[in-house]
Amino acid sequence: MSNKEGFGYKGRVLEALRKAEAEIGDNIRIVKDEEQYEGILIPRSETADENYVVIKMKSGYNVGIRIASNTKIEKTGKGAKPTFTSLSLPEQIQSLPKVAILSTGGTIASRVDYRTGAVRSALTANDLYSIVPELANVACVDAQIVFSLFSENIGPRHWAEIARAVADYISKGIDGVVVAHGTDTMGYTAAALSFALQDLPVPVVLVGSQRSADRPSSDAATNLLGAVAVAAKAPFAQVVVAMHETSSDDSIAIHQGTKVRKCHTSKRDAFKSVNAPVLARIKDQEIVMSASDYRKRNSGKKLVLKPEFNEHVALVKFYPNMDPKVIDWYAEKDYKGIVLEGTGLGHVGKCCYEALQNAMEQNLLVAMASQCVWGRVNMNVYDAGRDLLALGVVSLGDMLPETGLVKLMWVLGQTQDMRKARELLTTNIAGECSPRTLPERNCSD
Amino acid sequence: MSNKEGFGYKGRVLEALRKAEAEIGDNIRIVKDEEQYEGILIPRSETADENYVVIKMKSGYNVGIRIASNTKIEKTGKGAKPTFTSLSLPEQIQSLPKVAILSTGGTIASRVDYRTGAVRSALTANDLYSIVPELANVACVDAQIVFSLFSENIGPRHWAEIARAVADYISKGIDGVVVAHGTDTMGYTAAALSFALQDLPVPVVLVGSQRSADRPSSDAATNLLGAVAVAAKAPFAQVVVAMHETSSDDSIAIHQGTKVRKCHTSKRDAFKSVNAPVLARIKDQEIVMSASDYRKRNSGKKLVLKPEFNEHVALVKFYPNMDPKVIDWYAEKDYKGIVLEGTGLGHVGKCCYEALQNAMEQNLLVAMASQCVWGRVNMNVYDAGRDLLALGVVSLGDMLPETGLVKLMWVLGQTQDMRKARELLTTNIAGECSPRTLPERNCSD
Repeated sequence: MSNKEGFGYKGRVLEALRKAEAEIGDNIRIVKDEEQYEGILIPRSETADENYVVIKMKSGYNVGIRIASNTKIEKTGKGAKPTFTSLSLPEQIQSLPKVAILSTGGTIASRVDYRTGAVRSALTANDLYSIVPELANVACVDAQIVFSLFSENIGPRHWAEIARAVADYISKGIDGVVVAHGTDTMGYTAAALSFALQDLPVPVVLVGSQRSADRPSSDAATNLLGAVAVAAKAPFAQVVVAMHETSSDDSIAIHQGTKVRKCHTSKRDAFKSVNAPVLARIKDQEIVMSASDYRKRNSGKKLVLKPEFNEHVALVKFYPNMDPKVIDWYAEKDYKGIVLEGTGLGHVGKCCYEALQNAMEQNLLVAMASQCVWGRVNMNVYDAGRDLLALGVVSLGDMLPETGLVKLMWVLGQTQDMRKARELLTTNIAGECSPRTLPERNCSD
Repeated sequence: MSNKEGFGYKGRVLEALRKAEAEIGDNIRIVKDEEQYEGILIPRSETADENYVVIKMKSGYNVGIRIASNTKIEKTGKGAKPTFTSLSLPEQIQSLPKVAILSTGGTIASRVDYRTGAVRSALTANDLYSIVPELANVACVDAQIVFSLFSENIGPRHWAEIARAVADYISKGIDGVVVAHGTDTMGYTAAALSFALQDLPVPVVLVGSQRSADRPSSDAATNLLGAVAVAAKAPFAQVVVAMHETSSDDSIAIHQGTKVRKCHTSKRDAFKSVNAPVLARIKDQEIVMSASDYRKRNSGKKLVLKPEFNEHVALVKFYPNMDPKVIDWYAEKDYKGIVLEGTGLGHVGKCCYEALQNAMEQNLLVAMASQCVWGRVNMNVYDAGRDLLALGVVSLGDMLPETGLVKLMWVLGQTQDMRKARELLTTNIAGECSPRTLPERNCSD
């Protein structure tokens, strides 16, 4: 296998595959205990047993076969390798806006797994055109796999890697970038890219799918098409998330990257803009802006890349009887920041005050968001909030706790100076904190 | 002061008040540095500076005055003391259903603070009738202050105390109980009472207010009236939460205690039923059932009181780059259970698997809820979920993470036997986990 990571295969299984000169997408035969199995070699799922090889059989089923010392692997045919270069595309496609599709894994990337038996070829441009033919009317697509991870395994280092890959494409003059991502932590990554990619000249659109493409109810194709359309021609240049707005295919909602959250485990319209309007919608393949306040697309702009995140930042959700010593523990572990997910307008039990004070004396930056999800932290209403403000806890206003966590990681990746960090944390960088509106002020003051 | 707690006053301030024989509600004069202040002595807020005395002045403002060694306090008039006994109530009220109102603190209890200058007298029945005159058409009310805490300071011991106070009233033949509670953790307490009070003969209604009564937009009176109406005459006997359903006063929603969550920091309609329909509504002072499946009021039923909660249970919200060692820390601290608030259908990063396995080997019970809030944990969809199930993590289905935490505390308060605890955790006790419905099954399988 040429790929440095062996597409998830390791150790003696990888060795056996290399010996057979079998690559992902090749037809192989596995002979074991007088049984034999034929199919297309597909990448190993990251959580599957290391001793198995997975093939897609003619029936369409994927089968994992345990490789023992007496198992034989034989290559029976070379897989059709993608030969795509943008030059091979019909001329009318080449004249369309250029969009890069970066794949990071998740359900949306798994679609092609089911169709072709290989994740790698899944996201070549040619494959994408064959799977979603409407793309050929929208954009000239280039595709790249950044990595292939379920999104619960994606963290600050991956955010930086995606940001750099986006910056690379932008430096080459792309008209927009789509990032295909697992939905579980897509909100966190959207926030991270919003802070890491500043002064964007073109849109960066995260997209996922709640149902894999082998299911009749899959949202993969419509979401992808919507995301590519936004990347190709939206009037704004921000980090956004494109997902189904309703349970039908009528509308794709475009959410601002710092204000979006996965609010349902399984529905197609799981993503919601919180404390902010949806930025735009795609209806009948047209982009309809619903917010007037956005950062305009401007190819003359120079991207500022700031992909540094401090990994020593924790999110702590408060709950009745929470042990305040967990705060001490983070302080002892040399953490630099904590985002509290407090109750209501931004409260935690009095039992936590001493630990918070100690943490702040050790120079941790402590910020407050609300577990209510909707609304705005306002620590001036009750004594409890005022006490926390007096201790030095920073209010995150109407920022999502998840966005608050990512922002604090990013802030402490930019500066070690706590005074500057505090200032940066309370400065609106990417629409993460909305100014108070009149009705809101009435609500919470 | 006769009260053992001095209504929040301590040390030399309490001493000075005692010397002046001043009690809450009395008119006092404070002379200090040639200034003098007159007003009604009101209780000290639990988080206010210990060296201050707070009085309500004629203007209606509360003023805190720092008591120094040369400050003089003088009682200028005895406060009007509530003389209520139910016998003194007009006969037509005595013939109404009997409802107990237990106060635990929070904004709803603070209303009377503003009116009469005293929390104690706040929740006598006479005061309630004078503040919410419509109550006299609904119920014969008895009032008791269980404690007076902001709800972020309420935990398992308080839940037990409230449950016992409810049981006391029920043993005396009350027709329904209202629990006035701060909104911040009202959802947690509602879940706790749902598990602690089984086979209820009458309804137990938690009620709060999002805006204190001195504000024109206060929801205190309508919510309280709605809660008392439910306690007095609802056809069901469950633990429920009564709060505004919309931003107007049109409708009070009655939520099932295990399925309700505060979803906005400040709006009056902050409470939402999650993964369940609203149980009933109050419109035009009538109770309109919206669910057909409820536990019926039946005064012949014998309450089963189970107020034991295990305090060694943690709620851990997963986030990108979470340090799995925090799980080890809980295990080392002799915790008995952890509820994970995972991503999506119930996932945490692979980096956590080892720590979870170790925790379970140390006999911790680990359960999974979703930070999506809406939807249902389904760990059979992706390898990641199947891996967690194989490790022994228990799926909480469509249970709220907050309810899951409270249930695990309660389960481990009932039994130390881990096999039994697992069984109890996955058995529906108080409607906390809805059976899969057809559309849901389609969603998540």
